[in-house]
Amino acid sequence: MDDGLLMIPGPVKLHERIIRAMSRQMISHRSSDFEKVFEYCKNALKPLFGTRHDVVIISGSGTSGMEATIASFSRIKRITCIDNGKFGERFAKIAGRYAEVDHLKFGWGRSIDLDDVERSLAEGSDAIAFVHNETSTGILNPAEEIAGIGREYDALVIMDGITSIGGDRVEIDRWGVDVAIVGSQKCIGAPPGLAMVAINERAWEYYSESAPFYLDLKAYVKKAEGNQTPYTPAIPLFLALEESLKIIEEEGIDSRIERHRRLARATRKWAVDAGLELFPELNDFSSYSNTVTAIKMPDRITDKELRGTLRKEYGIAISGGQEHLKGKIFRIGHMGNVGNRDLIATLSAVEDVLLRKKACTPAIHSAMEELR
Amino acid sequence: MDDGLLMIPGPVKLHERIIRAMSRQMISHRSSDFEKVFEYCKNALKPLFGTRHDVVIISGSGTSGMEATIASFSRIKRITCIDNGKFGERFAKIAGRYAEVDHLKFGWGRSIDLDDVERSLAEGSDAIAFVHNETSTGILNPAEEIAGIGREYDALVIMDGITSIGGDRVEIDRWGVDVAIVGSQKCIGAPPGLAMVAINERAWEYYSESAPFYLDLKAYVKKAEGNQTPYTPAIPLFLALEESLKIIEEEGIDSRIERHRRLARATRKWAVDAGLELFPELNDFSSYSNTVTAIKMPDRITDKELRGTLRKEYGIAISGGQEHLKGKIFRIGHMGNVGNRDLIATLSAVEDVLLRKKACTPAIHSAMEELR
Repeated sequence: MDDGLLMIPGPVKLHERIIRAMSRQMISHRSSDFEKVFEYCKNALKPLFGTRHDVVIISGSGTSGMEATIASFSRIKRITCIDNGKFGERFAKIAGRYAEVDHLKFGWGRSIDLDDVERSLAEGSDAIAFVHNETSTGILNPAEEIAGIGREYDALVIMDGITSIGGDRVEIDRWGVDVAIVGSQKCIGAPPGLAMVAINERAWEYYSESAPFYLDLKAYVKKAEGNQTPYTPAIPLFLALEESLKIIEEEGIDSRIERHRRLARATRKWAVDAGLELFPELNDFSSYSNTVTAIKMPDRITDKELRGTLRKEYGIAISGGQEHLKGKIFRIGHMGNVGNRDLIATLSAVEDVLLRKKACTPAIHSAMEELR
Repeated sequence: MDDGLLMIPGPVKLHERIIRAMSRQMISHRSSDFEKVFEYCKNALKPLFGTRHDVVIISGSGTSGMEATIASFSRIKRITCIDNGKFGERFAKIAGRYAEVDHLKFGWGRSIDLDDVERSLAEGSDAIAFVHNETSTGILNPAEEIAGIGREYDALVIMDGITSIGGDRVEIDRWGVDVAIVGSQKCIGAPPGLAMVAINERAWEYYSESAPFYLDLKAYVKKAEGNQTPYTPAIPLFLALEESLKIIEEEGIDSRIERHRRLARATRKWAVDAGLELFPELNDFSSYSNTVTAIKMPDRITDKELRGTLRKEYGIAISGGQEHLKGKIFRIGHMGNVGNRDLIATLSAVEDVLLRKKACTPAIHSAMEELR
């Protein structure tokens, strides 16, 4: 019997304190008890986004947060969507239901080109949407530079920070990002089911009251002033989020980011020294993700053999590739509540399974040097 | 120190087993562990709706479920919306964003008139939406009769069963309801954050692919075939829902409905014998709710005095009136996991607070006779 260890890019393993925070009798969502929880979360989220603006909390997945931003700011006429992975593609799909889209496809796992971004904006987009950390491919896109171009052309800048916020450096106010989204179950370390959206004043110029009721950010902002939600909130998830944010406060955001970077460096070092190949093709503009690492699947082993054995023998879950990357890459999430011990167990186990197929060389101690 | 007892019409108090079901390490939403949970929930929900058709589960509030039904079936041209309370009004508001609405306002707490419903359909609506159990006023609307009229005019029949399904008799297939919605935190007894929607084949004639991504029922139905969700599900809430449904299976749906009716009868008996007045104005068409009782606030006491004292001295939460009914009524929820002991504690406490203001006469033993 094993609890299982989630080393996927979300949902992440929970800290025991977070599990306990959910384990309580239900409270009323219209009580001062709930309002205190809400107020704490709302304020504690701001430094993670790097914002002094409003943060709202939607009971829904990260996708509900992405759609809320596009649907609420429906004065957008034409939006440039940067796509170098599954979630960039999803953003473009969502945007297509609400506005004209200039869909910039760079290829999954490839760096973006800022010249193309600038050209698209020059051609008349009044908004730009991009994914900061592309979970599907392990790439970190250059948020500050993208936002800078957006600002130059006076466009609304929308950032999916679902798998960066809480684990990597994000400073949306300083960068000039107007709207950003994060999910509860990634770097923040809570269970899935909440989407948090930060919105600055400038964004409201693009607002019109035509969004779906459930995704209308104005309704959330209005209610958040009184530490409330427009519709019944998923209370246990708010209790868990509160505890996750307390843990983040105790760890300190700088230490937390450094922990994520350390785990990422160790994972990449291991992969390279083990003779494996990192999946992303980088140029000057993009970097490797600090919260998830994507590695090409060696020829001598199948996805099923690798992940199946890991799960069966060690109770460890890592991710495969999505859609056309299925079988071609595997992904290790090292975000949220993941620590050194979880990582070395995972890398050792992956190495063990690969070695049996002669699909890598031993390198676990290289990884461990990076963790010291 | 007191855990507090929720006697509001949702969220409801949790059974200890449901609390424990959430208290576990996170699992992957793409694992067979999750798929087993999903499959159990999907199937166990069907008898509560009284359907053999598809049931999907959305991570979102009841409102997200209401909106998903209207937004997904966007071939609806004109929809008749029955409004005799806050949630009927909400349905009409939501529908107004997607179709022409014939908004039938009967007044909050008043019975509906089936002749008006028939006239509206005869005037050309191709759909009808109504609330089965109107939580805001304690009225149970005649679902079978409304659906019958809808069927006669070949209209799509949409029912909000958010506070009836799981606690009162619902048989949507037999009644001719095409689409019905329930929330997790009401009669089913789980925490808030999930909306479940049952959809028959006929409803798909009204479908077109124009709904918001997050609320597109087709995406949920497709994924549900493989016991999956289109977007990351709120996993702890699914674990809690599974346990709630197991408890329902053990209790038996007939016994559960009888328990709800018994609690409702006892509450009404108490109110009348205590010299209080029930809020709903009934005619031949409507009945008192079996899951929530709305009582007029006596003159000699304010909402704040009643509910504040209850909370402070006894740790019991009941509900006030909403919007223009604020201060004019109070509402006792007796749904989900509520038992005899919870009810007599609540009625005794309410009676105690009212007696101090000479605002009622003692009647708690009348209620207890009904419970035997």
